[in-house]
Amino acid sequence: MKKVRIINGANINFTGIREKNVYGSLSYDDIIKNIKIKADELGFEVECFQSNHEGDIIDYIQKCFLDGVDGVVINPGAFTHYSYAIRDAISSVDIPFIEVHMSNIHKREEFRHKSVTAPVCTAQICGLGALGYEIALTALNVIIN
Amino acid sequence: MKKVRIINGANINFTGIREKNVYGSLSYDDIIKNIKIKADELGFEVECFQSNHEGDIIDYIQKCFLDGVDGVVINPGAFTHYSYAIRDAISSVDIPFIEVHMSNIHKREEFRHKSVTAPVCTAQICGLGALGYEIALTALNVIIN
Amino acid sequence: MKKVRIINGANINFTGIREKNVYGSLSYDDIIKNIKIKADELGFEVECFQSNHEGDIIDYIQKCFLDGVDGVVINPGAFTHYSYAIRDAISSVDIPFIEVHMSNIHKREEFRHKSVTAPVCTAQICGLGALGYEIALTALNVIIN
Amino acid sequence: MKKVRIINGANINFTGIREKNVYGSLSYDDIIKNIKIKADELGFEVECFQSNHEGDIIDYIQKCFLDGVDGVVINPGAFTHYSYAIRDAISSVDIPFIEVHMSNIHKREEFRHKSVTAPVCTAQICGLGALGYEIALTALNVIIN
Amino acid sequence: MKKVRIINGANINFTGIREKNVYGSLSYDDIIKNIKIKADELGFEVECFQSNHEGDIIDYIQKCFLDGVDGVVINPGAFTHYSYAIRDAISSVDIPFIEVHMSNIHKREEFRHKSVTAPVCTAQICGLGALGYEIALTALNVIIN
Amino acid sequence: MKKVRIINGANINFTGIREKNVYGSLSYDDIIKNIKIKADELGFEVECFQSNHEGDIIDYIQKCFLDGVDGVVINPGAFTHYSYAIRDAISSVDIPFIEVHMSNIHKREEFRHKSVTAPVCTAQICGLGALGYEIALTALNVIIN
Amino acid sequence: MKKVRIINGANINFTGIREKNVYGSLSYDDIIKNIKIKADELGFEVECFQSNHEGDIIDYIQKCFLDGVDGVVINPGAFTHYSYAIRDAISSVDIPFIEVHMSNIHKREEFRHKSVTAPVCTAQICGLGALGYEIALTALNVIIN
Amino acid sequence: MKKVRIINGANINFTGIREKNVYGSLSYDDIIKNIKIKADELGFEVECFQSNHEGDIIDYIQKCFLDGVDGVVINPGAFTHYSYAIRDAISSVDIPFIEVHMSNIHKREEFRHKSVTAPVCTAQICGLGALGYEIALTALNVIIN
Amino acid sequence: MKKVRIINGANINFTGIREKNVYGSLSYDDIIKNIKIKADELGFEVECFQSNHEGDIIDYIQKCFLDGVDGVVINPGAFTHYSYAIRDAISSVDIPFIEVHMSNIHKREEFRHKSVTAPVCTAQICGLGALGYEIALTALNVIIN
Amino acid sequence: MKKVRIINGANINFTGIREKNVYGSLSYDDIIKNIKIKADELGFEVECFQSNHEGDIIDYIQKCFLDGVDGVVINPGAFTHYSYAIRDAISSVDIPFIEVHMSNIHKREEFRHKSVTAPVCTAQICGLGALGYEIALTALNVIIN
Amino acid sequence: MKKVRIINGANINFTGIREKNVYGSLSYDDIIKNIKIKADELGFEVECFQSNHEGDIIDYIQKCFLDGVDGVVINPGAFTHYSYAIRDAISSVDIPFIEVHMSNIHKREEFRHKSVTAPVCTAQICGLGALGYEIALTALNVIIN
Amino acid sequence: MKKVRIINGANINFTGIREKNVYGSLSYDDIIKNIKIKADELGFEVECFQSNHEGDIIDYIQKCFLDGVDGVVINPGAFTHYSYAIRDAISSVDIPFIEVHMSNIHKREEFRHKSVTAPVCTAQICGLGALGYEIALTALNVIIN
Repeated sequence: MKKVRIINGANINFTGIREKNVYGSLSYDDIIKNIKIKADELGFEVECFQSNHEGDIIDYIQKCFLDGVDGVVINPGAFTHYSYAIRDAISSVDIPFIEVHMSNIHKREEFRHKSVTAPVCTAQICGLGALGYEIALTALNVIIN
Repeated sequence: MKKVRIINGANINFTGIREKNVYGSLSYDDIIKNIKIKADELGFEVECFQSNHEGDIIDYIQKCFLDGVDGVVINPGAFTHYSYAIRDAISSVDIPFIEVHMSNIHKREEFRHKSVTAPVCTAQICGLGALGYEIALTALNVIIN
Repeated sequence: MKKVRIINGANINFTGIREKNVYGSLSYDDIIKNIKIKADELGFEVECFQSNHEGDIIDYIQKCFLDGVDGVVINPGAFTHYSYAIRDAISSVDIPFIEVHMSNIHKREEFRHKSVTAPVCTAQICGLGALGYEIALTALNVIIN
Repeated sequence: MKKVRIINGANINFTGIREKNVYGSLSYDDIIKNIKIKADELGFEVECFQSNHEGDIIDYIQKCFLDGVDGVVINPGAFTHYSYAIRDAISSVDIPFIEVHMSNIHKREEFRHKSVTAPVCTAQICGLGALGYEIALTALNVIIN
Repeated sequence: MKKVRIINGANINFTGIREKNVYGSLSYDDIIKNIKIKADELGFEVECFQSNHEGDIIDYIQKCFLDGVDGVVINPGAFTHYSYAIRDAISSVDIPFIEVHMSNIHKREEFRHKSVTAPVCTAQICGLGALGYEIALTALNVIIN
Repeated sequence: MKKVRIINGANINFTGIREKNVYGSLSYDDIIKNIKIKADELGFEVECFQSNHEGDIIDYIQKCFLDGVDGVVINPGAFTHYSYAIRDAISSVDIPFIEVHMSNIHKREEFRHKSVTAPVCTAQICGLGALGYEIALTALNVIIN
Repeated sequence: MKKVRIINGANINFTGIREKNVYGSLSYDDIIKNIKIKADELGFEVECFQSNHEGDIIDYIQKCFLDGVDGVVINPGAFTHYSYAIRDAISSVDIPFIEVHMSNIHKREEFRHKSVTAPVCTAQICGLGALGYEIALTALNVIIN
Repeated sequence: MKKVRIINGANINFTGIREKNVYGSLSYDDIIKNIKIKADELGFEVECFQSNHEGDIIDYIQKCFLDGVDGVVINPGAFTHYSYAIRDAISSVDIPFIEVHMSNIHKREEFRHKSVTAPVCTAQICGLGALGYEIALTALNVIIN
Repeated sequence: MKKVRIINGANINFTGIREKNVYGSLSYDDIIKNIKIKADELGFEVECFQSNHEGDIIDYIQKCFLDGVDGVVINPGAFTHYSYAIRDAISSVDIPFIEVHMSNIHKREEFRHKSVTAPVCTAQICGLGALGYEIALTALNVIIN
Repeated sequence: MKKVRIINGANINFTGIREKNVYGSLSYDDIIKNIKIKADELGFEVECFQSNHEGDIIDYIQKCFLDGVDGVVINPGAFTHYSYAIRDAISSVDIPFIEVHMSNIHKREEFRHKSVTAPVCTAQICGLGALGYEIALTALNVIIN
Repeated sequence: MKKVRIINGANINFTGIREKNVYGSLSYDDIIKNIKIKADELGFEVECFQSNHEGDIIDYIQKCFLDGVDGVVINPGAFTHYSYAIRDAISSVDIPFIEVHMSNIHKREEFRHKSVTAPVCTAQICGLGALGYEIALTALNVIIN
Repeated sequence: MKKVRIINGANINFTGIREKNVYGSLSYDDIIKNIKIKADELGFEVECFQSNHEGDIIDYIQKCFLDGVDGVVINPGAFTHYSYAIRDAISSVDIPFIEVHMSNIHKREEFRHKSVTAPVCTAQICGLGALGYEIALTALNVIIN
């Protein structure tokens, strides 16, 4: 059974509370529930992690490596745009990462157009709302099998 | 039966010939075959269009509108990075577009990091190779149903 | 009888369909009809040309030269912002060009603020909607008589 | 009877003296005379104002508002390129403004390519010489009637 | 017998008409005649192609590949400065390209200083007028023999 | 009794008329009335000055110096963003200045994000509406006592 | 009784130790003592929070939301200049924030001139030293009552 | 007898008051006295003008033209760095201008490094303190004789 | 006995795992062992600290100050390039810091060329691999003795 | 007999030693030998000069002028990218210069894309390896005869 | 008797040969002759030095220091725009330098607008032709006496 | 016995004279003496070279190669920031270079923050004063043994 991890960064736990016109009204718990259903469907052993702390995310990525994780779906939230430390964590481990953004970051403020983590991920998916996580799992299923 | 269209821009027809280390060795015809299988599976009426001519792509987008197309998957190729005319064509029609790039454009030359068409599309998917088209169709299936 | 030409670039044929809040609800055909009425009034022999193909526009500009055209009103659409090839076509022929934009391009996205064709035209008029074409003809009437 | 105003900014009163190769040899008084003839023709009540003082122009714009003016043609001269104060004056009053430049500003020094006032005007006309004012009045006639 | 192709982009067919002070008064037909004489002299099978359509140029480059062409001399005209699609076409085929510009592009407008196609060509020659094509053929003769 | 001065720059006298969604519907006279009440409360001798003329503001700042003023609250309006002359006037006199903006300038157009006068003022307060002036007086009361 | 919170970011707890010429010699504890006195005076229920951890600040902002806080005064310290994650936290909760900086950030290094958090706060106050916090509370008192 | 004019812009009348470490302690009146002595010595009819109003300076430059002035020494003060209107006034009259700055503007803040008026003056002298005016007169004496 | 501290930032604990071609195959534990041997040799009381948490590093720098540490060798990892908070922590304490990077940051990605912490450190050493730490201790030995 | 000169700048004498993958393994002496053969063939009186000293190159260019040289082929090496002094030397003498680079400078580091000397040369040839010199002589033969 | 030195940089010895429309037709020897006459008149012991070698100029500046020179007039020619080494040489010696340019560098190519040496000189004079040197000596006479 | 070389660029020979607050009061001769003592201690055959001439430094680097030098410590002085010719010289020889700057270049003027030579050196050390050379030798001892 393949091990996959879902990592969510800063403020993603406030989805459904935060700017509904941008992120929709689905709550973070609903999103996680849907992700788990999809992961089961695909036969993955899944674990979902969220933190507002950049350091926790780096620690968790290192843990993924030590636990022999097969693939990661990551939505770094705002860390996407400046955390070179998360970027280095991703590139230091030999695991395929798919970056997901619920909103279409290219439609929003200038600073959101650039992702410092995308160049070290395998792929990037944005603009599909919470569906993006499931789509990423579907893709991961092909990549790691 | 929902109508979807696949639009491929400049040089995509040379996939499998062009820079294999970037795009893989699957030929353009193989890719189209796989897309059609996926579309059938999802119950879409599909048509695939490719052109090296920016104007043909704009004409085709206008035709999609006139034909009542429900959703479009577009890989504009290099037009992605400068064709404001294709951007205007997309935004002039009321159809959801998903932008796909086979390579992870954020890993490549500076000029490929910016997409002028992404801000008027619903979503963008990159780095999944030819699988990206199928993933986009899967997403479109949710969006337009 | 003076010969004038009206050249419209990418997506202008979708006016009335495309972004009505920006361009108004007048259709492309309505606009052309009004232009012809104005041209008649001013005693011009007029021909209206539209294409979504940059190359067709260049070919047509060269044809204007060969046909001894006296003046041109051009709305290059999105080509305005990057087509150095249309710019070179304009500067290669000895005919006065007036550039017209229906919307006020300075109120819109950053990329629309710069015109690469304006420096080789005689004049530029923007923000007057479809009226801009008629106003341009009125001006041309003074310039070429 | 509709009230229109013509506002000319810095150094426009030296037209005919200043750089004839750029602005032509028509004097400022000649230009005003022609504007008045055109305004009469269109049935406007017109007043022409010129000042080298940015503050006077702002005061005058505020006066236009208080006097219930219907439309303004403005050539801010060099203020075009840096006077955010004039920009704010224009946007603080609910009157259509048409910005006019006698020369084609896109053909000249880099700093003249950008207008800070154009985004708050309805329209911009440049490159038609003194004819630009008359053309602007013709357009205003349609807009405010 | 080695096969070489000469590709000329937008407006090159108007050479001799367009800006004589920049490009000289030799007509496009004269230039082609001289190129053919030189090609014969070097023992090349030559074909000359010109188009104002970016898409035609890409199609033709792909045709060069399918026809087993040995070397190409290309003057993309204004496409040089923005056509990433032509750039991709060149890099997708395994043929040596020599980029030629009749004028010294470094002496002209800022936008002409940068070539987006040069990085994927073997060499670039500019400033030698129509002689540049013959010089390029001379160089190609060494490279492909 | 400490002497303080309130200086308002371009278009502030049109507050309540100008863009109500940005500045609120309080009129300039209302604002001045409130400022005077606050100044009385704090035991200041106060004088309020407004001008659309950059030069008048500089003259007035120099007058403040000659009159032995103890503190100034200044809202330069749009001059904030380009008047290096007002900046120099402020830095040429040895009086504490507090810069006030009614709107939050960081939420608005790019050009409003930069203040050329702030670096020579003691403090800057923005986003509090007309309340900002009173708050500035409260702060000045601590600074100059 | 209205609930307000004071959030201080990185290194603010070292005020009085750190660069006295910039921040004054008042210690962090002194500042907090004064804030509490002011809050009592205004009838606020107040809590002061400081952390050198960006993640703790985000967690605390989310807690403010869950606790039904009425207003926040925040000095993010150096996080001001790059923490888009704190920015998103602020904009995800519907509470008025006033940003405070003890020093005049516009007088200091270039990187301190830009605040990424200010655009999502209601107001910004800088340059008033420790007094800034009290002034912010005074303003908050008007805003939330 | 040759007519020369000395024009001083914003805040120059506060020299000796303003930032003594930059401009020295000589007062504006002392400087003017020295200029007049020098002018007498060189046999010039001289008039000295100072204003904090950009518009007054433009009016005065136009007056110089109408009065048949032979040469001008100008220190525009802070207007140097943004007044394109003064620049246009200078270039609209056919009189040699020498730009003078008392301080070495290249040693100071970034914004002072660029002069928008220098390109339309004959010469520029900076860093010589009040002596700069006399030196400029000495140079003018050669140029206009 | 002088007290020195070694601070390592994000991902340094994964050295030997992460990108071996850049950082070599020595593990983090090996590096620490070598540092301790060197410190003993130089007669230092040493403590080594690593964290992936920016906040922990700031807390630790503040602790260094409170513990009367004499010198610090710091490799902030990716925090080097954006953590203005760590920069402020360093400049808030009066201890000499030597910044060390194992790789030559000037040979790598553009974003690594700039260090926001270097301007507040005493010195910077890069490109010497793990040897850099020992070299830094050698230098510190001179500086603090 | 026409006099031509070959000028090689910094490090060209180390060709064959320096970065063979970029410049090939032909030694500098081999290159010079080939150049001389070509020059003889074309009937030129030739002299080859190389220096790592910018000043020597300028002196030599001035000597070319004094010796009545008819044409120069120059490869300034790295001076190409910053020596405005060599640029001025070239433009100060009335001799046609052809700039040659063995490598395709547009394929290499960003700083090599810009030539400060090209705008004052007649032509530029790059990417042809050592053949470039001979090709340049062939072109010079047409230009100066 | 005060010792002054005149230093001329690259290509100044070709004045009168080089671009006469920019620098006039006076030869370098004529200029030196005039400088010497002026120096005698002012009672200076003068020495004139010219070199096309940046290193020679630095050596000479160091020699000025060792010889106890009282003041220097320097025209670095094109070195002005990039020689940080000459800049450092000037700032390493405690002698007043006046930078002179014969042409008005602000009227010419963009790269000539910036002087890297001016910030470490006392003053800068440009646009007065060869007269500039004499004017500089006149100023130096005041400064060093 | 390993051969090492110390290369010092422009103005380093004036250390102790030049800006003592930046570089300390140790003279160049003192520094060289200390370097030699260190080199002896490490068993190196050492030679120290200094020049204000970029060309001499390039010649000397080439000589190092021909003499079979094992390692070089280089302080290019101001050449660091623009001499691409020295950069090419370093990269053309297969010798480890360690770049040394006595001052912390990141604390000084903007232009000193960038080193064009560092990317082709093995390592860079700055901010340790004259000690930097000895530290560099210590490091070289490990690298080349």
